[in-house]
Amino acid sequence: MHDLPTDRDLPGDMAVAVLNGVRDIVTERRPVPKPGRGEVLVRVLAVGTCGSDVHYYEHGHIGDFVVDRPLILGHEPSGVVAATGEGATLHEPGQRVSLEPGVPCSRCAQCRAGRYNLCPRMRFFGTPPVDGAFGEYVVLREEFAYPVPDTISDEAAALLEPLSVGVWGCRKARIAPGSRVLITGAGPIGLVAAQTARAFGATEVVVSDVNPHRLRLATELGATGTIDVAKTPLTDAGFEPDVLLECSGVPSAIGEAIRQVGRAGRVVLIGMGGDEIPLPLSHVQGSEIEVTGTFRYANTWPTALALAGSGDIDLDRLVTHRFPLADVEKALTIAAKDPTVIKPVVLPNAQNTPA
Amino acid sequence: MHDLPTDRDLPGDMAVAVLNGVRDIVTERRPVPKPGRGEVLVRVLAVGTCGSDVHYYEHGHIGDFVVDRPLILGHEPSGVVAATGEGATLHEPGQRVSLEPGVPCSRCAQCRAGRYNLCPRMRFFGTPPVDGAFGEYVVLREEFAYPVPDTISDEAAALLEPLSVGVWGCRKARIAPGSRVLITGAGPIGLVAAQTARAFGATEVVVSDVNPHRLRLATELGATGTIDVAKTPLTDAGFEPDVLLECSGVPSAIGEAIRQVGRAGRVVLIGMGGDEIPLPLSHVQGSEIEVTGTFRYANTWPTALALAGSGDIDLDRLVTHRFPLADVEKALTIAAKDPTVIKPVVLPNAQNTPA
Amino acid sequence: MHDLPTDRDLPGDMAVAVLNGVRDIVTERRPVPKPGRGEVLVRVLAVGTCGSDVHYYEHGHIGDFVVDRPLILGHEPSGVVAATGEGATLHEPGQRVSLEPGVPCSRCAQCRAGRYNLCPRMRFFGTPPVDGAFGEYVVLREEFAYPVPDTISDEAAALLEPLSVGVWGCRKARIAPGSRVLITGAGPIGLVAAQTARAFGATEVVVSDVNPHRLRLATELGATGTIDVAKTPLTDAGFEPDVLLECSGVPSAIGEAIRQVGRAGRVVLIGMGGDEIPLPLSHVQGSEIEVTGTFRYANTWPTALALAGSGDIDLDRLVTHRFPLADVEKALTIAAKDPTVIKPVVLPNAQNTPA
Amino acid sequence: MHDLPTDRDLPGDMAVAVLNGVRDIVTERRPVPKPGRGEVLVRVLAVGTCGSDVHYYEHGHIGDFVVDRPLILGHEPSGVVAATGEGATLHEPGQRVSLEPGVPCSRCAQCRAGRYNLCPRMRFFGTPPVDGAFGEYVVLREEFAYPVPDTISDEAAALLEPLSVGVWGCRKARIAPGSRVLITGAGPIGLVAAQTARAFGATEVVVSDVNPHRLRLATELGATGTIDVAKTPLTDAGFEPDVLLECSGVPSAIGEAIRQVGRAGRVVLIGMGGDEIPLPLSHVQGSEIEVTGTFRYANTWPTALALAGSGDIDLDRLVTHRFPLADVEKALTIAAKDPTVIKPVVLPNAQNTPA
Repeated sequence: MHDLPTDRDLPGDMAVAVLNGVRDIVTERRPVPKPGRGEVLVRVLAVGTCGSDVHYYEHGHIGDFVVDRPLILGHEPSGVVAATGEGATLHEPGQRVSLEPGVPCSRCAQCRAGRYNLCPRMRFFGTPPVDGAFGEYVVLREEFAYPVPDTISDEAAALLEPLSVGVWGCRKARIAPGSRVLITGAGPIGLVAAQTARAFGATEVVVSDVNPHRLRLATELGATGTIDVAKTPLTDAGFEPDVLLECSGVPSAIGEAIRQVGRAGRVVLIGMGGDEIPLPLSHVQGSEIEVTGTFRYANTWPTALALAGSGDIDLDRLVTHRFPLADVEKALTIAAKDPTVIKPVVLPNAQNTPA
Repeated sequence: MHDLPTDRDLPGDMAVAVLNGVRDIVTERRPVPKPGRGEVLVRVLAVGTCGSDVHYYEHGHIGDFVVDRPLILGHEPSGVVAATGEGATLHEPGQRVSLEPGVPCSRCAQCRAGRYNLCPRMRFFGTPPVDGAFGEYVVLREEFAYPVPDTISDEAAALLEPLSVGVWGCRKARIAPGSRVLITGAGPIGLVAAQTARAFGATEVVVSDVNPHRLRLATELGATGTIDVAKTPLTDAGFEPDVLLECSGVPSAIGEAIRQVGRAGRVVLIGMGGDEIPLPLSHVQGSEIEVTGTFRYANTWPTALALAGSGDIDLDRLVTHRFPLADVEKALTIAAKDPTVIKPVVLPNAQNTPA
Repeated sequence: MHDLPTDRDLPGDMAVAVLNGVRDIVTERRPVPKPGRGEVLVRVLAVGTCGSDVHYYEHGHIGDFVVDRPLILGHEPSGVVAATGEGATLHEPGQRVSLEPGVPCSRCAQCRAGRYNLCPRMRFFGTPPVDGAFGEYVVLREEFAYPVPDTISDEAAALLEPLSVGVWGCRKARIAPGSRVLITGAGPIGLVAAQTARAFGATEVVVSDVNPHRLRLATELGATGTIDVAKTPLTDAGFEPDVLLECSGVPSAIGEAIRQVGRAGRVVLIGMGGDEIPLPLSHVQGSEIEVTGTFRYANTWPTALALAGSGDIDLDRLVTHRFPLADVEKALTIAAKDPTVIKPVVLPNAQNTPA
Repeated sequence: MHDLPTDRDLPGDMAVAVLNGVRDIVTERRPVPKPGRGEVLVRVLAVGTCGSDVHYYEHGHIGDFVVDRPLILGHEPSGVVAATGEGATLHEPGQRVSLEPGVPCSRCAQCRAGRYNLCPRMRFFGTPPVDGAFGEYVVLREEFAYPVPDTISDEAAALLEPLSVGVWGCRKARIAPGSRVLITGAGPIGLVAAQTARAFGATEVVVSDVNPHRLRLATELGATGTIDVAKTPLTDAGFEPDVLLECSGVPSAIGEAIRQVGRAGRVVLIGMGGDEIPLPLSHVQGSEIEVTGTFRYANTWPTALALAGSGDIDLDRLVTHRFPLADVEKALTIAAKDPTVIKPVVLPNAQNTPA
């Protein structure tokens, strides 16, 4: 059982890690927020770090999203419900939850059509100007906190967020039993996507990368083949997928990868790779390839929970490093120094440095 | 390696089991057919028996399809290519194959739209007036014979046919990771459907039947729950599926099963249950349930091969009894006498009574 | 320009027509409601009457929805914004609007998936216990009030509600250019559906009914053929549709209509016809017919507005009778007496008896 | 009635226009072909000229398709059945027909899945090494010749081919009632696409081009708006479509056009514009735009026939110039000289120079 403060035990303030500028994160104390109507207050147990956190830390912006005032990063949290706001009835305090970190307006045409990830008024954790989860507590609209069964660890519950990215990509790609899938890039998203593609029934899942360590891990996690593109160009690999999940974000490689896709194939661009890439028009036309990109996800948590809860997908295997809140900067910089890093996780309420 | 006759070794005639009338099958000798242009001659290794074979044997017709002259039944065959016709280039003699037992016209609107199972000129094994596979040899258009990897046994290769029924049903039902599926009826199709639903990612697969033996087998094959409807009515089972695969063909039960399906759910009627059933209109409207039926399958063999070949689906476990060609009648009647029978298989080229 | 009261001009109370029991509607005065946060107050200009209003009036319930306390009916309203609540920014007072008469919770799984018509917490006008629009004013969440261009009359703006039923049915049926559509029943919904099917590109739209007057109107509104089923059974009509839109709600006729549908056809059951109907199982299976029902609609108003605004669909032609608020009972009973009635409309703010 | 030669009247040879090399077409006499099994011989009445004919004429190749021996161009033919081959039963001699000019293998995975346009063994008129329709007679598999009603002229029957391109594009784009469509390029395909989009129910159809003459024609044919991109950049046009049908094939413009498309929009690349174009990745991801290309069409003729036959689409309006067979070169070169040219048509059996 988690060590849960009751309402009257709730502390008045909490520690948070604040990004004050490029490569400048400091730990501060702020008041614990109060859950509003229909909201819950969640004590944060684990938060995955993501490439976008690193990008904000290093550059201060992603495209048009600019960090122009202090911002708390972190959008892959799990936690335990500490208190409930007025009218919030879905959870009891003490309930362990995985958090879907974006709350849409629920009113616009995109929301009403079920595409709430495209809501122009989305408030998303760790995206300016909305604070994220690198802190001891967060508040969230109650229906975006999902109860987690005992078969899912705190850290895996945090990683339902990247799993959702994989589920969304596999849905967009219409992966089904018998699909033959190429995944370019074996970072955390590629590794999750490989497992997800298998869970969608894909019988061939080939992962490419330049990092042999990551390719070995891909195989351990269920990939049926790997391509070390430092040694073998994709064009020599002799694999014609019907789906490409692009998870590398390397613009120069994307066009070549698209050319491998067979007739009536689908390409889903998940990795972020700048403003523009070359599209092989004649191949896209001649083979009627469908190309799309993903922006976050919608309605994925129930599926992600079912897949992680049933053991079909192993998220714990991705967690390679753990840090207390005071070491968020280390969590965001370690991957650049160590090729064996997959997913560093921050544990905001850990009392000591985790192992 | 299979014992393959070369072209010059091919016998002039062969044994076949002919249905001459209701409950009247005799073994005869007929000339071995010659493969025509684009066709292959296949020496039959295993043929599953199906409820429709039994129905023709017992009643002499299924709906408008009437056996009004001698007919060879059997439409679940595997075999080995014995000879190739002019222009047939896909297979070498000796290639072990699973046979998709219906050849459509390839010219009509249904064929051109990819729905060749609805081709009005379909020629389907063991369906009047087209002879089936209860014989030592059959001919087939080459592209309907699929090479089988070593990981699939002769008998499993035959059972790709019922697996195709399951794949088609799961596609129609749009089963996906996280789906909650109710399967009514744990006969061979229900048991295949349960495994297929799991392979499509369904995380809850509940099977209902009145036969405890079959329900135990369902659990062994991956069902996450069972309901013995002799003891517990569906309405008391407290399971709200989003998909119903109806595999019992019991009209009185179908309406009740449909009422269990949740909002925006799908119902696929696979079991044959007569001309008319009651449809719960107000539930279908109020919850916008989609209901459809299946007629055979289209474009399923590649998927069935991938699922059986990867080991995700176990077809061998369904084979409970084996018979030589001389005992086709026994193969068709044993299920009515013994509740532990799942799938009897006929081995037309076995020299002795199989175990 | 509409005669718009400003905020300070708003009256303190208003007239409403209240259903107090079976066949018992009285006009009362009630306080004008105040728009809440994100809501608008709308002065009602026109309200279509619907078969479900008639059913509540005559029977006091529809299935499980029971009128057990006084209820205001009416769910096909247009109006003009009279006042706006806190935070409501979409409309200025004076804006003429068509009202989508159901407000879902926006939080549940159905809402988030874009199927808000299946929201279990939907609050729908004129459905117990939620009051409807047979009154001088209503309040509604602002995004469910849609601005109406000058090309759409007040009455046509009200009839965007039944048009939405038609749009939803055509979407469910996947009607597209070249579709061949049978519509059974030429009441208001059938007549709207016929026009909508044409707007979706259907090149053959055949309408059946027993009322020659309605069949003539169907032809005037764009049906390419009609069948008077009092004279010619559907089975003799020689028309094989690929879509059936069932708008009659006559259970005995539905099974026969489904049997007319061709291979891979779609059936959408729109008309309400009791709890259970016979489903022709062997036809549904042999031709792989898809059958579904509709429950209201979701995300249809923009389409309905575009179709009515462009003149592609004529809603004014359906309005045959107009009544002031005091005559709601007449509006609900006239159709039973006069076979030329299509759509009676109530004009709650009309000063005199309309023509 | 057409002047039909009976079988015994059929001439022994016929005139054909042969491309012998770049910019080198000569009229020759060749034997009239005999229809094979399941084929019909068609006397050609009209053949539209297409940009791809012009490209082969000017360059001798399109991508990998190289004209390395004499080739008859022309793939937009109508005609009248002159004779039928063995087993061809669909048409009587004298039947006027529109020809779908590509015959797939009907056996491969693409064909069986209903995507026969992607058949790798497709034999397509006027594409090396398959001769086309710039001649007095052609043979074709009977089911690819479609009877034409009297409401469709010979020339319109020929132009069902470009109409099929438009239908295919609109299907890929999922255009439906209420869609807002941008069409870049007002050549023959753009003008057909504009009409087709309207027939699919699009209520806003905006066409862009640099040719004011073509933009005026677009408006006459039903476009609801036009943009002269020589004067107003797309970015200033203030139109946010949910569908882009790219019909210009101008690589530099395509990226900009894609950036105009709104959230969850679809882009269909119809115009051929070389091997590679820039794809605005961040926009495709941020708005989850779906991008695909088209390669010919599949299963479009019934729809095209229905739309042209009902008068919903006007193809005759596109025919601006007519030429006898002897003037095929003029037909292929006039567009480059005269900005008012839309669609030149060749009439292979016309006795005199047409007007």
